[in-house]
Formats: sequence, C-alpha cells, structure tokens
Amino acid sequence: MNIKMVFSILGRTLLIEALLMCCPLLVGIIYGEHSYADYLIPIGALIVIGLPMSFLRPKDKAIYAKEGFVTVAFVWVLMSLAGAVPFVLSGAIPNYADALFETVSGFTTTGATVMADVEGLSHSLMFWRLFTHWIGGMGVLVFVLAILPGFNSGIMHVFRAEAPGPSVGKLVSKLTFTARILYGIYIVMTIVETIFLLCGGMSFFDSVLHAFSTAGTGGFGMKNDSIAGYNSVYIEMVIAVFMFLFGINFNLFYLLLIGNFKKAIKSEELRAYFILVVGATLIIAVNILSMCANFGEAIRYSFFQVTSISSTTGFSTTDFNEWPALSKAVLIVLMVIGAMGGSTGGGVKVARVMILFKSVAADIKRLVHPRAVVSTKFEGELLGDDIKRNVNTYFILWVFIVVVCTVLLCIDINDFLTNFTATLACIGNVGPGFNLVGPLSNYGLYSPYSKILLSFVMLVGRLEIFPMIIVCAPRTWKRG
Amino acid sequence: MNIKMVFSILGRTLLIEALLMCCPLLVGIIYGEHSYADYLIPIGALIVIGLPMSFLRPKDKAIYAKEGFVTVAFVWVLMSLAGAVPFVLSGAIPNYADALFETVSGFTTTGATVMADVEGLSHSLMFWRLFTHWIGGMGVLVFVLAILPGFNSGIMHVFRAEAPGPSVGKLVSKLTFTARILYGIYIVMTIVETIFLLCGGMSFFDSVLHAFSTAGTGGFGMKNDSIAGYNSVYIEMVIAVFMFLFGINFNLFYLLLIGNFKKAIKSEELRAYFILVVGATLIIAVNILSMCANFGEAIRYSFFQVTSISSTTGFSTTDFNEWPALSKAVLIVLMVIGAMGGSTGGGVKVARVMILFKSVAADIKRLVHPRAVVSTKFEGELLGDDIKRNVNTYFILWVFIVVVCTVLLCIDINDFLTNFTATLACIGNVGPGFNLVGPLSNYGLYSPYSKILLSFVMLVGRLEIFPMIIVCAPRTWKRG
Repeated sequence: MNIKMVFSILGRTLLIEALLMCCPLLVGIIYGEHSYADYLIPIGALIVIGLPMSFLRPKDKAIYAKEGFVTVAFVWVLMSLAGAVPFVLSGAIPNYADALFETVSGFTTTGATVMADVEGLSHSLMFWRLFTHWIGGMGVLVFVLAILPGFNSGIMHVFRAEAPGPSVGKLVSKLTFTARILYGIYIVMTIVETIFLLCGGMSFFDSVLHAFSTAGTGGFGMKNDSIAGYNSVYIEMVIAVFMFLFGINFNLFYLLLIGNFKKAIKSEELRAYFILVVGATLIIAVNILSMCANFGEAIRYSFFQVTSISSTTGFSTTDFNEWPALSKAVLIVLMVIGAMGGSTGGGVKVARVMILFKSVAADIKRLVHPRAVVSTKFEGELLGDDIKRNVNTYFILWVFIVVVCTVLLCIDINDFLTNFTATLACIGNVGPGFNLVGPLSNYGLYSPYSKILLSFVMLVGRLEIFPMIIVCAPRTWKRG
Repeated sequence: MNIKMVFSILGRTLLIEALLMCCPLLVGIIYGEHSYADYLIPIGALIVIGLPMSFLRPKDKAIYAKEGFVTVAFVWVLMSLAGAVPFVLSGAIPNYADALFETVSGFTTTGATVMADVEGLSHSLMFWRLFTHWIGGMGVLVFVLAILPGFNSGIMHVFRAEAPGPSVGKLVSKLTFTARILYGIYIVMTIVETIFLLCGGMSFFDSVLHAFSTAGTGGFGMKNDSIAGYNSVYIEMVIAVFMFLFGINFNLFYLLLIGNFKKAIKSEELRAYFILVVGATLIIAVNILSMCANFGEAIRYSFFQVTSISSTTGFSTTDFNEWPALSKAVLIVLMVIGAMGGSTGGGVKVARVMILFKSVAADIKRLVHPRAVVSTKFEGELLGDDIKRNVNTYFILWVFIVVVCTVLLCIDINDFLTNFTATLACIGNVGPGFNLVGPLSNYGLYSPYSKILLSFVMLVGRLEIFPMIIVCAPRTWKRG
C-alpha cells in the first residue's frame, strides 16, 4: 500500500474542506451572526492536520485499486468528522453522534435529519448544512483532482472508486479534463435552477440553498415540512424537473453539449429511467386519487414524490406515509433502484438493475440451450464478465448490508418497517423512509449507536459499497 | 423439444397421483365417511388423461435440460389442479381458486392455508391435506423415477430440476438407486417420528399426519392454533427436533447410514445451519424473555419457532406476530435463508447463501489484488464458475420475484408488511407471515387473483425458480 500517496491526497482534500468551510463563515459575517469560532476552530484543525500531509512528496506516485478505495473511504470519513464540528460548537446539535449523522447525511446527499426543528437554524449553519449536499453530490475527490495538477498516474482508480454508477466512461482522454467538464455542467445547472426558483418568488438565499440541495440530490430542506411549506405549484414543478435532471447521467449532458443529441437520446438507461418515472407517477396518481381533490392534484403530488424518491433526493410536498400500500411499495422500489449511473443520485442505479436483468436473461437462455453462444449488450457495447461479476457482487453485498442493518436497528426501535425503510433510505441516500422515519418525522428517535451504524450505511451507499467494505476488511491491511 | 417424452413422464405421474389419491379414499371408508365420489371423480379423470399419455413409447428417449424443466413445471401444476378437486367436491372449500391455493400450498410444503377453521374437516380430507405435504416434500418425480424402470437416459435433468439445493450429488452411480435410498430414509424417519408422537399420547391418526406434515416441512396442522393446542412440551420438542432433522441434507443421513460419520459431521453447510438455529434461538429467547414466565419458557417458544421457520415448516406454538421487531426480523432472515440444500425444506437454502458469500469474498479479494489467483472452495471442493453463476442468477431472480409479487399484492391488501411477508412465506414455502397473515390468521383475506399469484410463487419457491420461469419464457416454446 502506497500510504504516503494516500496521505498526500488526504491532506490536500482536508485543505479543500477548510477552504469550503470559509463559505458558511462568510455567510455568518454577511448576516451579522457572531459564529466565527464555530468555523474557525475546525478550519484551523483541518489546516494543522492537512498542511503537513499535503507536503508529502512521495517518489512513487503510483496508485492501484486498493489505494483508490482506501483513499476515498478515508476522505469521506475524515471530511464528515470535521464537518460535524460547527453543528456541535454552535449548540444547534449538541450531541456529536447526532451532528456526525447530520453531516454524513449531508455529504452523502442522503438528507436524513435528526433535527425536529430546522427553521431555527442560523443562516450560516443552514448554508453549511445544504452546502454539504452540493459538495458531496459531485464528489470531493473529483474536485481535488479537477483543480490540482500532478495526479495523473492512477487517479482513474480514485475517480472510479468515488464516482457513482457501474462504470466510469472517460468523456475525453484526459481524466482531469473530464472532471472539469462534469463540474462545469454541475455549476451551470445549479445556477439555472437558482434563477428559476428566484422567478417563482423564492428569496435569493432560499433559492441558492434549494438549488444546492437539488443539485446534489440531497433533500435537506429549510422548512420543517420540506417543500410543502412554499405551497407553490411552480416551485414544486421546478424542483421536480431539476430533481429528475440531476438523476440523469452527466455524460449525457456532455453529449448534448457537444451536439451529439442522437447518441444521448439513444441511451437505454435514460429510456428506462424515464419509463420508470412516468410509470410510477401514473400508478401512484391513480392509487391516491381518492385522497386528492382531482386528478391534476394527484399528478402534482405523485410526480413530485416520484422524482424526489427516484432521484434519491427525498424532498416531500405531502405526508406520503399516509398513502396506500401500493404507492408505498412503488416508492420503496424506486428507492432501491435509484437514479442513473454517473448522476448525483443514489440507489443501486438504473444501469446496474438493467445489467442484472440482462445477465439473468442470458443465463436463463444458457440453461435452456446449454450449447448456445449467448452475448449480452448494454448501451450498444458487449457486457464483459468482469462488469457483470462486479454488478453481481455489488448487489449481493447490498442485500447483505440491508439485512444486517435492519436486524441491528430492530434492537433499538421496535418497528420492522421503520427500520427496514430507514436502512433502504440511508443506503440509497434518499432520506425519509416510512412509519417512524416518514417525511414528517426524523431520525432523532434512534440511539447514538444506531446513528453511527446508519452513518456508515449512508457512506456505504454513496461510495457504492466497495470502498467502505474494503477498508473494513482485515485482508486490506496485510502486507504483501 | 421432445414433447412425446415429456407427455410420457407426465402420464405416468398422473397415474401415480391417482394411486396416491386412493389413500384418502381408504381413510374415508375406514372412518365411515360417504365421500367416495369426492375422490373417485378426480381419480377417474387422472386415469382417463394419464393412461393414454403413459402408453406413449417415444423412440427418442433423450431428455435435455429444457425438457427437464418443462416436465417438472407441468407435473406440479397438473398434480395441483387435480389435487384440489376433492376440496371442492366435498364442499370444504367451495371456491376452486381457494382449493387450488390450499393444494399448491400442500404439495409445495408451504402450509399456508385459506381455512379459518380446519378442525371441522372430515378425516379423509384432513388426511389428503397433510398427505400432500408428505408427497411434495421429497418430490413426485423422484418417486416416479425411483419405482419405474426405463428412464435412465437424461433423467438426471428431471431430478436436478426438481430436487432442492444448488447441486445434486449423486450418492451412488445409478440415479434410480439414489432416489430409492432417499425415499427409504424419508419413510423410516417419518415412521420414527410417528412412534415418538404416539409415545407423547397423541392419537395414531394425529401422529401419522403430523409426521407427514413435519417430514415434508409443510406446516399444515390439524388444529386452528397449530401445535399450541396440544399444550405438551414433549410433543413440541419432538416436532421441533424432527423439523430440524428434516431441514438437513439427506445425503448426510446416507453418509451416516454407511458409517461415514466423519464426513457427515464435517459438512460446512450443516455447521452453518446448526449455528443459525442455535444463534437465532438464543437471540429470540433473550428478546422475548419479558413476555415469558422464565428463561426456560422463552427457550421453549423460541426453539420451536426457530426450527419451524428455518426448516420452513411453519408450525407455531404461540402468536409470534406479537413478538418484538428484533425477533420478527430474525425470523424473516431465517425464512429467507431456509433449510439445507437436499432437504425437504424450502427457502434460498443455506448452501446457496454460503456460496453467495464465498463468491463475494473472492470478488472483493480480486478487487483489492487484481492480479491474484483467487479460488473458492465449498464442502472441500472447488466452486466452478458455472455453479457460482447459477446461484447468482437464482438469487437475483428470487429478489425480483419477491419485489414484483409484493407490489402486486399491495393492489389487493393495504398493508405492506403483510404482503411482503406473505410473499417471503410463500416463495420460501414457510406458510405463516406477519401482520394479517400471522400464525393465527390465514390467507383467506386475499382475492382469488392474489391467491393464484401466491400459488405460482409457492411453485416457484418449491421448484427453485428455474422450471416455472423457463416454462413462462416465450423463448422456450420457439422451434430450433
């Protein structure tokens, strides 16, 4: 293991976090909040720890798969540990386990909260809380790689370990250039959403923060009843459309950008994602019709909730905990599948589910015709055994972690569905679940031990399982 | 497709069913019930249909994988369709969809019932109901193959398609001989359990029938409150121990029989199954302690329920629906895992879960050390890619079917946990689930459409997914 190289990247990332934390500090100053110490203390700590590490100049700059996974896992854990400090120092979340849960939930773009009342937060803390979504949405390391030179050999492994989706297609030959393009699209789309929200009469501060939360497909809101409080069809529809857009593979936006409209629209995954959203919206609208004034209202609630859950954002405009079992079951399925690979959304990812289906179909074909040559294609390319095996392993581990976490949570809270959906909502980076963790409730009911467990599960979900599992495997730390 | 050969086997199986149906007819005569017509009509129909088919003498006796799957699926569906008739004719279950559900539940050894009151059944119907468990436990086709000569070429495919577990080890070189040994062990163990139950003061009729139900790991009881009604610790413990035994791979009993004690005890799967049962018993006993008079009583309830669920029998001695969430979660996990491969039990099977784990561990090793040569062993033998892929495909299909069935049931009954556990209980051939399908409830609340769906799912579970899926795939029926 090239520990020096891992530390070097780690150090630079911590410095970036110190820089990012200056933003809420600035917001505090602008709004005249005397909260300097809440940010200056963690910023100082990050510099003291990060600076010496970033000065490491390893001779061997080679990074392999193992280092990639370990770096990513460490970066996310350390960033969360530091990011939680302002919540504790300000007294907004006095308990550190709670603050850590909230910060991990922010960075992983889960949006699960422990706070019953978020409206009492200071401007600077509110900014930091929703800013973590925006930072985590695209990934911190991608950012580090995009702006810092000198990390060319082997950073593909880091990129691959952090980026969501079954495979990372390099848009252009140079990876750092790819990262810059992705960040460019991300920033522009965030700005566009902000403008749209401003047009709907939302204040500048609220617009920017909601754009952050949507862009990262996070789901932290600024009101206790999420988006319902704005009571504006326009705002709901703007957010719904942008949630849907941020659930799309960013490579497709790049294709649009360079004018390759045909290839973008041909994406199998996009079609499946679209069909999923439209289909679920219709099923739920019909299912909740009797609870609504008319079909239009049913579509309004249904479309918002479907885009929110399938993009794994987690905003809500109504208490979908009260919906009938069919709607709940559909939402749970969307929660599991999640958004497209290469988007800021979470879940298993539409592409993975499609690859699972395709390899199962091929295997059945092989069972029936043992001597037939069966090949599987996805997005026009042959699916290799490697990618199929990787997706299989991902899925089996996913199921295993969901089962273990649900059982462990049952020690704490005596309601199976609460624990089951809390696990799904956390590993899928969605946020709200059902029953006691429904959209109008919060995760405050869990013990600190369960919160740490759920924080781990959120990281597992955001980093797509392997980094967190590999870092926990004793084998990783053996020499040789 | 060698249709003639499929029909020939089908015909013989229907004749066997006609023969088996003479048993309840006989019971009816012994107990002086005037129910001849209830059995003679379906027996007649089976002979009329089966006899001409069994006279087919196909020149080409070769059977391949496809024919194996199709034969097995057809046999089980036809046998269930015929087996349901006595329930309808007698008026005990007037609705045919209900009767079919009950019969499929019997043959698949699920034990899910639509009857609120089973104590009112006639002796002959009660016998037929529990006898279906015993027939289905070991498999009908194995029986046909074991007693009928002339099916040597390719019957391995039929055997493989019907037998539970990830791989069928031939005990001895000749397959029909293997089948006879397995049936021998099955019959002897059933007799031994009957004797043990007789010693506990149970009547002869009840003892035989409970032995049938246990041997097939079915779960149909003779009282409305299952085994609780006997209120005897001795009877509970006898049944619990036999449920555990019938959840063990029969190959191990054969090894014991030929004196190879060492190899039997070395089985990795047996150890895992044992640890699972002991661990779950202890966790649940501690968890339900506050609901019991003392630890002994907690162990009594816990041990019985754990062996019942993990062997996928489904008997109950208490309303475990009232247990805390942790106990429920553990039971759900046991329901999913199920018994050992090659036993009469259902579920995914301990062996499959272990193979899944082992291949995941190997894949993680490969991710960390991309150039390492990684091999996986199970029960002392190298795991080939074929078996790993087969288990993977099985598991992915399993998850897919559970999700689809749960969502479809939600259209019918407005309770997610009821539908989710009903699906798990049916695909795992367990029987009772939670909430509205708990141990004191029944499946009568579902619409006929849901009952047909659940019948399909029970068959999917019993036949280990592939036969039912392959029979439904349009590709199977294409020429060439």
